[in-house]
Amino acid sequence: MNWERLQRQIEFTVEIDKIKNIVRYTRKIADPDNYENDAEHSWHLAVMALFLKEHANEEVNITRVLKMVLIHDLVEIDAGDTFAYDYEGMKDKKEREEKAAQRIFSILPDDQHDEFTKLWREFEERETPEAKFATALDRLQPLIHNYFTDGQAWLDHEISADQVIERNEHIRCGSEKLWEYAESIIEDSVEKGYLKSQSPECE
Amino acid sequence: MNWERLQRQIEFTVEIDKIKNIVRYTRKIADPDNYENDAEHSWHLAVMALFLKEHANEEVNITRVLKMVLIHDLVEIDAGDTFAYDYEGMKDKKEREEKAAQRIFSILPDDQHDEFTKLWREFEERETPEAKFATALDRLQPLIHNYFTDGQAWLDHEISADQVIERNEHIRCGSEKLWEYAESIIEDSVEKGYLKSQSPECE
Repeated sequence: MNWERLQRQIEFTVEIDKIKNIVRYTRKIADPDNYENDAEHSWHLAVMALFLKEHANEEVNITRVLKMVLIHDLVEIDAGDTFAYDYEGMKDKKEREEKAAQRIFSILPDDQHDEFTKLWREFEERETPEAKFATALDRLQPLIHNYFTDGQAWLDHEISADQVIERNEHIRCGSEKLWEYAESIIEDSVEKGYLKSQSPECE
Repeated sequence: MNWERLQRQIEFTVEIDKIKNIVRYTRKIADPDNYENDAEHSWHLAVMALFLKEHANEEVNITRVLKMVLIHDLVEIDAGDTFAYDYEGMKDKKEREEKAAQRIFSILPDDQHDEFTKLWREFEERETPEAKFATALDRLQPLIHNYFTDGQAWLDHEISADQVIERNEHIRCGSEKLWEYAESIIEDSVEKGYLKSQSPECE
């Protein structure tokens, strides 16, 4: 048996446990006083992919969608979670995450390092039908969370509907149907006062 | 658009968030003072499946393995987590989980309810190559956690090596190679004092 190969795989198993400590800005629906972490988020996306796949604009290979959503946040072990509306933090996000991908995926045997790196890049580039659908889920899931926790995460940061639309509109590229649903809950969130209808005027 | 179908899928999305509150008896490797939950555990199994698949005894369809590990613990939303060495709790586990599966999966549209129920049963029955491999991962992952957190979970409950072997030996049915690795860490755990070498003598 090739123990060296398995040892690297076990080392990776241990390393990725750290994602359970990467806390996001999204409150848990079933426990709104607490925030979900990247492992919980990635699991949620994967299960959602199974039963929402039929709403993708184009036929998608579900296995590749699953792989992408399962590993897309591993880079945050080093790079941390960047809040969706943190425009400053977004500036060097790409660079931080590229460096993280190099370190983390290189723990795996070379062929698997390559496979994971490619999948992660594909997700980030949002060009294939699978990446478009996977990234649509990645945006839809926190929207659902924010809506079903009375908009608390939006209220905490005084987010407006136009910011949410700008940030999430690419859901449409993966699924027109899911974007239609997203628009309906954004609209309802404005009515309920979870979201301001627009950003404050500039001075 | 069929909104009724999507509404059921969204309701399911919200329902399964509860799994993030189902705490297991396994300590997190990267944060051993805290215990992982079912969402984190299921995510970990799914990623492990991706890079450990090559060690399965038989060729497996990775998509079905992923589906099974992603949803296998949803029944615990109602039935709760049963500690692996809680022989009393194990008695009515099957009955509690069957009831839970009926309630939880029936939130989904009928065709998806059927698909999820079948996958969950397949996992539980451990007969197909995919179910054997998926359940092997389900046993291996907490073993790795216990080993890399200095056996604390075993020490807390005074678990012995023969209990661990009895409970986990069916890893072998999914992967001889992973069982060989598991045996090596069980042996090392006895040497390090994480596990007693055998159960106490009966009086």
